Amino acid sequence: MAGKEQRDSDSEAAPPTLGVGMVGYAFMGAAHSQGWRTAGRVFDLPLRPVLAAIGGRDAVAVRAAAAKHGWAAAETDWRTLVTRDDVQLVDVCTPGDSHAEIAIAALEAGKHVLCEKPLANSVAEAEAMVAAAEAAAARGQVAMVGFNYRRVPAIAYARRLIAENRIGALRHVRVTYLQDWLVDPDFPLTWRLEREHAGSGALGDLGAHAVDLAQYLAGEPLVGVSALTETFVRERPLLAGASTGLSATGSNGRGPVTVDDAALFTGRLASGALASFEATRMAAGRKNALRLEINGERGSLAFDLERLNELSFHDHTEPAASAGFRRILVTESAHPYLEAWWPPGHALGYEHTFVHQARDIVHAVASGNTAPAPSFADGLQVQRVLAAVEESAEKNAVYTPVPGSAG
Amino acid sequence: MAGKEQRDSDSEAAPPTLGVGMVGYAFMGAAHSQGWRTAGRVFDLPLRPVLAAIGGRDAVAVRAAAAKHGWAAAETDWRTLVTRDDVQLVDVCTPGDSHAEIAIAALEAGKHVLCEKPLANSVAEAEAMVAAAEAAAARGQVAMVGFNYRRVPAIAYARRLIAENRIGALRHVRVTYLQDWLVDPDFPLTWRLEREHAGSGALGDLGAHAVDLAQYLAGEPLVGVSALTETFVRERPLLAGASTGLSATGSNGRGPVTVDDAALFTGRLASGALASFEATRMAAGRKNALRLEINGERGSLAFDLERLNELSFHDHTEPAASAGFRRILVTESAHPYLEAWWPPGHALGYEHTFVHQARDIVHAVASGNTAPAPSFADGLQVQRVLAAVEESAEKNAVYTPVPGSAG
Amino acid sequence: MAGKEQRDSDSEAAPPTLGVGMVGYAFMGAAHSQGWRTAGRVFDLPLRPVLAAIGGRDAVAVRAAAAKHGWAAAETDWRTLVTRDDVQLVDVCTPGDSHAEIAIAALEAGKHVLCEKPLANSVAEAEAMVAAAEAAAARGQVAMVGFNYRRVPAIAYARRLIAENRIGALRHVRVTYLQDWLVDPDFPLTWRLEREHAGSGALGDLGAHAVDLAQYLAGEPLVGVSALTETFVRERPLLAGASTGLSATGSNGRGPVTVDDAALFTGRLASGALASFEATRMAAGRKNALRLEINGERGSLAFDLERLNELSFHDHTEPAASAGFRRILVTESAHPYLEAWWPPGHALGYEHTFVHQARDIVHAVASGNTAPAPSFADGLQVQRVLAAVEESAEKNAVYTPVPGSAG
Amino acid sequence: MAGKEQRDSDSEAAPPTLGVGMVGYAFMGAAHSQGWRTAGRVFDLPLRPVLAAIGGRDAVAVRAAAAKHGWAAAETDWRTLVTRDDVQLVDVCTPGDSHAEIAIAALEAGKHVLCEKPLANSVAEAEAMVAAAEAAAARGQVAMVGFNYRRVPAIAYARRLIAENRIGALRHVRVTYLQDWLVDPDFPLTWRLEREHAGSGALGDLGAHAVDLAQYLAGEPLVGVSALTETFVRERPLLAGASTGLSATGSNGRGPVTVDDAALFTGRLASGALASFEATRMAAGRKNALRLEINGERGSLAFDLERLNELSFHDHTEPAASAGFRRILVTESAHPYLEAWWPPGHALGYEHTFVHQARDIVHAVASGNTAPAPSFADGLQVQRVLAAVEESAEKNAVYTPVPGSAG
Repeated sequence: MAGKEQRDSDSEAAPPTLGVGMVGYAFMGAAHSQGWRTAGRVFDLPLRPVLAAIGGRDAVAVRAAAAKHGWAAAETDWRTLVTRDDVQLVDVCTPGDSHAEIAIAALEAGKHVLCEKPLANSVAEAEAMVAAAEAAAARGQVAMVGFNYRRVPAIAYARRLIAENRIGALRHVRVTYLQDWLVDPDFPLTWRLEREHAGSGALGDLGAHAVDLAQYLAGEPLVGVSALTETFVRERPLLAGASTGLSATGSNGRGPVTVDDAALFTGRLASGALASFEATRMAAGRKNALRLEINGERGSLAFDLERLNELSFHDHTEPAASAGFRRILVTESAHPYLEAWWPPGHALGYEHTFVHQARDIVHAVASGNTAPAPSFADGLQVQRVLAAVEESAEKNAVYTPVPGSAG
Repeated sequence: MAGKEQRDSDSEAAPPTLGVGMVGYAFMGAAHSQGWRTAGRVFDLPLRPVLAAIGGRDAVAVRAAAAKHGWAAAETDWRTLVTRDDVQLVDVCTPGDSHAEIAIAALEAGKHVLCEKPLANSVAEAEAMVAAAEAAAARGQVAMVGFNYRRVPAIAYARRLIAENRIGALRHVRVTYLQDWLVDPDFPLTWRLEREHAGSGALGDLGAHAVDLAQYLAGEPLVGVSALTETFVRERPLLAGASTGLSATGSNGRGPVTVDDAALFTGRLASGALASFEATRMAAGRKNALRLEINGERGSLAFDLERLNELSFHDHTEPAASAGFRRILVTESAHPYLEAWWPPGHALGYEHTFVHQARDIVHAVASGNTAPAPSFADGLQVQRVLAAVEESAEKNAVYTPVPGSAG
Repeated sequence: MAGKEQRDSDSEAAPPTLGVGMVGYAFMGAAHSQGWRTAGRVFDLPLRPVLAAIGGRDAVAVRAAAAKHGWAAAETDWRTLVTRDDVQLVDVCTPGDSHAEIAIAALEAGKHVLCEKPLANSVAEAEAMVAAAEAAAARGQVAMVGFNYRRVPAIAYARRLIAENRIGALRHVRVTYLQDWLVDPDFPLTWRLEREHAGSGALGDLGAHAVDLAQYLAGEPLVGVSALTETFVRERPLLAGASTGLSATGSNGRGPVTVDDAALFTGRLASGALASFEATRMAAGRKNALRLEINGERGSLAFDLERLNELSFHDHTEPAASAGFRRILVTESAHPYLEAWWPPGHALGYEHTFVHQARDIVHAVASGNTAPAPSFADGLQVQRVLAAVEESAEKNAVYTPVPGSAG
Repeated sequence: MAGKEQRDSDSEAAPPTLGVGMVGYAFMGAAHSQGWRTAGRVFDLPLRPVLAAIGGRDAVAVRAAAAKHGWAAAETDWRTLVTRDDVQLVDVCTPGDSHAEIAIAALEAGKHVLCEKPLANSVAEAEAMVAAAEAAAARGQVAMVGFNYRRVPAIAYARRLIAENRIGALRHVRVTYLQDWLVDPDFPLTWRLEREHAGSGALGDLGAHAVDLAQYLAGEPLVGVSALTETFVRERPLLAGASTGLSATGSNGRGPVTVDDAALFTGRLASGALASFEATRMAAGRKNALRLEINGERGSLAFDLERLNELSFHDHTEPAASAGFRRILVTESAHPYLEAWWPPGHALGYEHTFVHQARDIVHAVASGNTAPAPSFADGLQVQRVLAAVEESAEKNAVYTPVPGSAG
């Protein structure tokens, strides 16, 4: 051990509470629950999150989830949940096809909203959500989209270095997001492989993160893209029962995969920098390899989500003899979010991004910041990029402008 | 995202509870609290941990800690805490000089005990604790020592590979534990630098982990050691007030450092394998570099706590052309503890070791396993190694047998 | 030290010689000289290379190069060199704009030819060279193009693993070749930045290697591409005198850069696998980062030229718990080319690729193999890909078929 | 490609020659031959090395070696070789038991001498060699010991950083040299496993390099050591014929291994810094892992011979948030020895150390520097450390002073 010990002050007065209602209780539901339970135990928050109610269609399963994850109540109708008096913030963790309906209803019910990414399955839905968020902002409500990887400390620190001009004029942004859970051709046909539920495949699931991070880090939007997509395995075993997750194994026959297995695209940022992207769930051996590299006139950055506590930084203003990519262990108290965690060198994990997300939206609510980043508008911008990618892929990869981006 | 979703069963019946009382609320207290709060939310446990009471001498601080970390009550006298009716398990997170007294009292009060490492500041204290634990075991009580790094999934998986004979006859075990928080000669004189509180310096703080892991992984004890120790910075600024942590900065004058800054030792395991150890808090740039490598006749393993989700494994039975150290991302559901966490590639962090520790002791209590590993006897064995190290260092590094080890 | 010692046999009879004439004496000339001098000293060759004559326009400089690198004679007219009686093989190391003329003349003079990459500056030139090589092959002459990275042992071993079906059906091939020597906007305008001499920029210089390796490793051609290119710094300082290299520093005014600084392209292989490429000389901190990764249904491979003695291999047929990318140190005697070098773990370097290239063409000449790989036809295929890349970049990135590729 | 091209000047006058005679033609003979052949082709040297004569006992084999490696003559009696008129420098590449006799004879014959490491098999021999070297120095002769790893550019650059005080007061030096060619218990009993020829096992073979590098980099001697050694496999198959190398496989019965398989030792440098060493040929999967790390008050360095083009440097004077170990690719023209090689990022290999060694001794001869580093006195100092290690190992690891070291 090293470093830091308890330095709690004597503030006896408990903070006021923020009632949270969450819709969905699968993988994202578990991760968000951990975030809500933990944020106030680690950070000093102006409002104490209370896990008021969790919603899901299957009464038995949702009650079990409530017990397991520590939610006070369970609801089988999200419409009831979003109007509960003890809920001030609705956290939408369902598949993408229901985001718009739930989030808009929650905003209209006067709730703050945190919505999982991708914001929606279509640009039209996302536009409606932005409109609802803007109307709600005028009433003092907060809306945020769950691009949680912005809350990896190394990513937040990378953004700080870029904002401080340590990288200089950008030349290249490259992001690959590689997983391998679809390599097995007998992996079953879950909702994530069906266009009507998932919107798209690797593109929306992984590419949405890649695009958001590229734009967030660069501080500028993509203005156009050129894309290839592919579905390598076009039929997969049907699930025996309802598709509630990825681990289901029963099957009876095979059905068509209606989303992409992989998406490759290049593009230009507003400044003229070149960008390249790859999202795939067919890269054997890569489990969660969200890798990015940014090259500028004054330096470069590199990151890999499989080593999320590390950031590589090359300072090109150093003499050539002593320059090199340095591995920064992003666990110092001077790093973003680290003031509240462990001593240097004590690693954080994946779920900490949800703790940080909870912390940030609680601060936004408490301070009346109705446009915290990433906003629904940021989510819409990503959706537009994804739509341009799909359009380009359909049009023989021709370079396709992203509507609304300067340039 | 990838992989796994909620598969909670329909068990509505809430499990019985296990009241926990924790003494100490500094760094370890915060980490253990996170473990107790989280274990039952992630794992399916036979008993639900309840954070009943936290103890500390400073009434204001301990009440603040209770509020922050979610403990129901606060006690300023640990003697009261260990006899509370709502406490069935006492978790000792104080500095080493009070471990024996508190743990023995708790055992005598009929409580299960989890005690932070090192078990004690002396072999005599540790022996008394083992005697108390044995007596308590006869009454059905559990005692465990907090060598939490055994609960890093990569370490637990390394042990499994060794137990499965994937490494073969052991030749070398090398462990270094490098930190750098004492490089600055003006870092103040906290309790960790005072022999009367800490027992020793890098040796007990870091070396204890190194020795425990070496013996745990090898599955056999060290039988003798040869050691050098050094205190590079022999005076440091005094703390202004009471020394309650490492972050205190006030000072008035300098006082003597009475523990080692670094300890280097070599040894032999019972099987004849050679072992080497280094523990230091003066290795600039190394933040939490607990690195170990094990070489055997059939393979090798390597691990670095700064990349705790990874294990390197070389299979020496492979053809030479295709052999090499493989980087196993220890995040598969088939890996220890991973059945309850996130999909492959989604990293865990430092604090998860405390969640796993809580899980394991809860299972021991529920199943009546009165000798869970690491036991107090394991802690005593480590203490004997540390004592032999200090004896060797005092005797010009001469090879010094570890009492009680076979060989 | 470890391993291997002299096991030369008693063959006293010296092998016959192969007279080599080399045109060009800059960077590539120095590297090739090292290859010719060394190949017969390390490998047992059927013909002993003799460094007969070196050619270059500047009489003083070419004589100095001859003395420095160990060539017996110096010529200022390559036409004379390629007809010398003591020259049986002509090695073309000039800039790309003279490859066709020299190589064709040498073939017509009855010489074997090794030609640096890229084969030519245009598809038309490359086609003429292929025609000349085919005519020469009928006369028993050998022609080879200098894609020397095929001779990195790790690359050759990667090809072997793919050929042995250890990777399975290919899904993804990604190659980036990143350097940074043009990041400085005041780097001067050498011939490599002028279209009339270099043909293209990063595309032909680096991208040609990337495309050749992708096709070589995959064992199949690219059938179409979509591309973006960019010239970030459009004017650079003029060189004071003749542009003979990249290290010149004199300047008087600035002139236009007429080639690309960076090229990004995606594509499809004949089998349907997706490929992505990036070639740039503007990636700060990346010195010679030719990185490739190949994902297939049974495994994956990864390589980085900055660590050229290593190959990463993931065997996806392993159980998930023990699978991972293994770092193979490609220095075993069972690895390609390694039978003649040092014991395991003793690294090779960049220039060894030229030793291996010399070895391979000597064997081809000795055995009458008139179509050694990579052939001029292979070089033409790469040229067609580069042309398709340029065409796509001009046509708004539209997917552009590669002429002559199946599919 | 990138970077640098030919910039040879017009110096037509060929330099005078330096006739080299080499004794021994096994692994080291091949490596040294490559060094002698190449040094003058890459570096501008004041004397041109001529490979005059090679010596060995087996007439047929030595003639074959001469032909293979390019030596003008072959001698079967080293006494003849060291007195040849065309030999001005004798390069001793035999096993350690003949170093003293040959080197002293060569010095007495008026030759410069380069002697492979370890300098000798005993301190007494080494002392005699130093005396002979001192007498020869008075006559203008040069003597150097072949600690070639000082000539790895990354090591030479590390020394420069330490000399420039970038590391500050040293705290820790740790060096491990791990190989695995003895893991197989059926590897045969070659001369390297016999005390009468090899002097010691891993200690002299690998540990000698480790000790020399530690002292060279630190710029100060070890003043005492504490050691454990072990022979894990105590009998091995006998070689069928004469033991001329490690690759022999024939056997008839087993014989005793009379040297150590592994040596572990700790020590103190003159400044008080702690040092640790491990040398073993039983570390499965480690091929040539000479790894060192140095920690000081201002920074740290790390190096691994398996990645010999890289140096890791942590600058502890940086702000904590942006500090980290940077990977310096030691291939810049500003790095030691690199002015003559390839552009940045183009890796060097193991054998380049012998080219650099040849370069350095040629400069010493030409400039009349009769005490180039590493001198025979440096070799003697290493021998004294090795003797102290063996003494400590025999005396139950007791801390044993190194004679002659200050302190």
